[in-house]
Amino acid sequence: MAVFVNGKFCKDPNVATAEDFFYSGLQKPGNISNPLGSKVTTVNVDQIPGLNTLGISLARIDYAPYGLNPPHTHPRATEILVVVEGELYVGFVTSNQLENKLFTKYLKKGDVFVFPEGLIHFQLNVCKTNAVAFAGLSSQNPGVITIANSLFGSNPPINYNVLTKAFQTLMQSKN
Amino acid sequence: MAVFVNGKFCKDPNVATAEDFFYSGLQKPGNISNPLGSKVTTVNVDQIPGLNTLGISLARIDYAPYGLNPPHTHPRATEILVVVEGELYVGFVTSNQLENKLFTKYLKKGDVFVFPEGLIHFQLNVCKTNAVAFAGLSSQNPGVITIANSLFGSNPPINYNVLTKAFQTLMQSKN
Amino acid sequence: MAVFVNGKFCKDPNVATAEDFFYSGLQKPGNISNPLGSKVTTVNVDQIPGLNTLGISLARIDYAPYGLNPPHTHPRATEILVVVEGELYVGFVTSNQLENKLFTKYLKKGDVFVFPEGLIHFQLNVCKTNAVAFAGLSSQNPGVITIANSLFGSNPPINYNVLTKAFQTLMQSKN
Amino acid sequence: MAVFVNGKFCKDPNVATAEDFFYSGLQKPGNISNPLGSKVTTVNVDQIPGLNTLGISLARIDYAPYGLNPPHTHPRATEILVVVEGELYVGFVTSNQLENKLFTKYLKKGDVFVFPEGLIHFQLNVCKTNAVAFAGLSSQNPGVITIANSLFGSNPPINYNVLTKAFQTLMQSKN
Amino acid sequence: MAVFVNGKFCKDPNVATAEDFFYSGLQKPGNISNPLGSKVTTVNVDQIPGLNTLGISLARIDYAPYGLNPPHTHPRATEILVVVEGELYVGFVTSNQLENKLFTKYLKKGDVFVFPEGLIHFQLNVCKTNAVAFAGLSSQNPGVITIANSLFGSNPPINYNVLTKAFQTLMQSKN
Amino acid sequence: MAVFVNGKFCKDPNVATAEDFFYSGLQKPGNISNPLGSKVTTVNVDQIPGLNTLGISLARIDYAPYGLNPPHTHPRATEILVVVEGELYVGFVTSNQLENKLFTKYLKKGDVFVFPEGLIHFQLNVCKTNAVAFAGLSSQNPGVITIANSLFGSNPPINYNVLTKAFQTLMQSKN
Repeated sequence: MAVFVNGKFCKDPNVATAEDFFYSGLQKPGNISNPLGSKVTTVNVDQIPGLNTLGISLARIDYAPYGLNPPHTHPRATEILVVVEGELYVGFVTSNQLENKLFTKYLKKGDVFVFPEGLIHFQLNVCKTNAVAFAGLSSQNPGVITIANSLFGSNPPINYNVLTKAFQTLMQSKN
Repeated sequence: MAVFVNGKFCKDPNVATAEDFFYSGLQKPGNISNPLGSKVTTVNVDQIPGLNTLGISLARIDYAPYGLNPPHTHPRATEILVVVEGELYVGFVTSNQLENKLFTKYLKKGDVFVFPEGLIHFQLNVCKTNAVAFAGLSSQNPGVITIANSLFGSNPPINYNVLTKAFQTLMQSKN
Repeated sequence: MAVFVNGKFCKDPNVATAEDFFYSGLQKPGNISNPLGSKVTTVNVDQIPGLNTLGISLARIDYAPYGLNPPHTHPRATEILVVVEGELYVGFVTSNQLENKLFTKYLKKGDVFVFPEGLIHFQLNVCKTNAVAFAGLSSQNPGVITIANSLFGSNPPINYNVLTKAFQTLMQSKN
Repeated sequence: MAVFVNGKFCKDPNVATAEDFFYSGLQKPGNISNPLGSKVTTVNVDQIPGLNTLGISLARIDYAPYGLNPPHTHPRATEILVVVEGELYVGFVTSNQLENKLFTKYLKKGDVFVFPEGLIHFQLNVCKTNAVAFAGLSSQNPGVITIANSLFGSNPPINYNVLTKAFQTLMQSKN
Repeated sequence: MAVFVNGKFCKDPNVATAEDFFYSGLQKPGNISNPLGSKVTTVNVDQIPGLNTLGISLARIDYAPYGLNPPHTHPRATEILVVVEGELYVGFVTSNQLENKLFTKYLKKGDVFVFPEGLIHFQLNVCKTNAVAFAGLSSQNPGVITIANSLFGSNPPINYNVLTKAFQTLMQSKN
Repeated sequence: MAVFVNGKFCKDPNVATAEDFFYSGLQKPGNISNPLGSKVTTVNVDQIPGLNTLGISLARIDYAPYGLNPPHTHPRATEILVVVEGELYVGFVTSNQLENKLFTKYLKKGDVFVFPEGLIHFQLNVCKTNAVAFAGLSSQNPGVITIANSLFGSNPPINYNVLTKAFQTLMQSKN
């Protein structure tokens, strides 16, 4: 029986070993043969039990040529990303209070960008070669909400009236 | 000159008065003559300076018949909503880890529902009369991200390739 | 056997449903036929399990004509209150450091007032009709300490010498 | 001009010295020639600027024979007290949810007792000799609310109807 | 079977008693007949279960003449220390960013000093008589890392190359 | 004039731009021609102002053949490290409570290891080629304390008696 206490139990610290703080597997690229052309490999408290309560996790992100890590949010974490291979076009959108400004940047190898907690952000590979990035996240369990999936791919689907009204209204207000 | 320290400065507590903890104005309905048919009136640290650092705020939400408070997130707050007039159909979508499950409920007067921090949620008035709700939010500065505006109405707009790839891919994966 | 971890366990998120985020019952007035003429109906983690760890709760407060929600504190929460029916005279007292200043306000329908965490506060219905308020609290388990009950109604009672010395001394210092 | 940011500014760490982390003065007894027969000498961020943001402070408490540190709360801190001279009768009252239970203990030199955050507590010297205690508090700015002063000594006084109704009702319910 | 949740479980609050908030034993000096000539007696969540989640603990520290509480850190707490007997020479070293400045002070009876969270600090009895101090720590489970033991006394020992390179390099850079 | 508020002020969010969330420079190796044969290049709130309050930062660590990132602690952060080139021998030592156990691991490219907040840890390049790692840290201002520098290289130096007593005592207890 699994028990859940803010997500995870702690192991008895007297029997913990180095293995509880270790993970192997980020050397190989994630499988990017998918329509989006990107793959996020996460290393959080599910992979490393010793991360529990410590407030941090890691991810490797692989991008096929022109691959996209589509607009998404992390409900419980800020992300700091560094490009280790290729070039990326990245951005996030500020909240309504700051008028939904889009902040973007072209990143080369070694460039770093921050996506503040809860804001919608994305990364696009703008080159014809693969790209790779590493990202630190400020939670051992940051969560991911891919906007397209959450809005149009939920199970069951969101009521049709909700979606059409939300998007038609926006479109009308822009015309 | 305005100065910003995690959002706001504190007033010298020796000169604070009851006015710094007071706001008047939630008795009258928000203006719902807009395409969405809804209006959120917020009472946070911008309206009540004394809320600074105290971790809570309030909102009144008015809904025209069939009006919609469209899918949105609060990047820094959980919301607890109570219906005080009319009936609402409400819902939120869980994160990718929990398979983007949609949790919904029809709420009558006096019913209460919780929208956890950072998750996409909405409320729809399902009746031909007005509806009113009050909501508590777990931050003095919760923020709001209306998904349609953030994705399709940002300034400047998000790159066309990002949006089409994100949504076309989803659609293909569902067919 | 109940187990307590900072108050409550979390449910396995994979089997959570909309019911875990829902409560029905705030439409009907609390029973105010009591000597104080007031009743607080709380909606916190005891009523809504899904509130666990989310840092917010709600209350409906009903007041008979001239009814009183007597001086009390919330040891773990700030409160933000909105009047939805009737009129209230409300107040809180600052700490010793700020010289025990009393901040008060007459609130009409739609007025909002904040009671900072841990400070002694009260609400009095100053009209001959019922009053109703809703309040958001910045904890899923805010706690309530009614001062009169805690000081003079504890079980067992506080030592008589403690109480008389505490209050006689104050009275003498004011004469 | 003083500026307030959650209470206090931080000094430029490059010009800080050992003096910013030091306070001298707890060697001499507080002045206990007052009606209560007790004196609390606090060492918090007002006395030691370097405590800012560090979440702890200290106090020395002196008690005349039969002196009382009267019922009070700390709105932002738990207290852990150790008796260094004399004997004390101490107690706190749990919140309404736990039925206002009074927990008390006679403490001798070297005994330690905890007063959880926000609960009403007191210490009484039960001997005919002086007593001294030290207390750690879990905030650099814990605050103190002496209940008698806050309820009956506020400035201006709390409305007479509020106080009489609050206490008469309690008395009636106990008869 | 012990279960660990951020260290400790909470007791059912309905069966808690005053004993859960009490500890006896700080009246007698710790055993200082050891090579360092000092002894720390801790009162944290292991001694007082009621401290769980409350963010504070206490320690009594005894020093033989010229006894030393050797350089150590608390990974989860700031410490505030008061001398109650004798005289101490105390100090801490700032982080690399602030150029490893050593802040020291001679403390007499009644003097107070603060050791910020995570910084290396020590206390030395500079007199030929015993000394005693009490210390508050800003965690119910502050942890202690004695630098000498952690670096040179770990189990198993740290690789010889790591230690010699670390210290030889420093020595060379100073010559 | 610089002003310090828990380290840093926030910029007016209305005039923030993408540049405030961007840093360029991690593509080139740090200068490892030093006696330790390692170099840490940090990207925290000093390099990226937009990180303020967001609780995360990043570092690139370069190692010459047999180079060492010597034993150190981060007083305000847990670290999660991933090897991107070469091989490392890494370790941390648990606190006194857990008997100063040394946890070590040989890491290859793509391996990940966690160093919990406040614990002494190190990385050693065990190969004759360069190595590179990236590390996420759970604070925008994690701080670094190199143990050798803090103990033996502080300014002014720690009293000779303190150091010799601390280390001689340990050595004696091991013989």
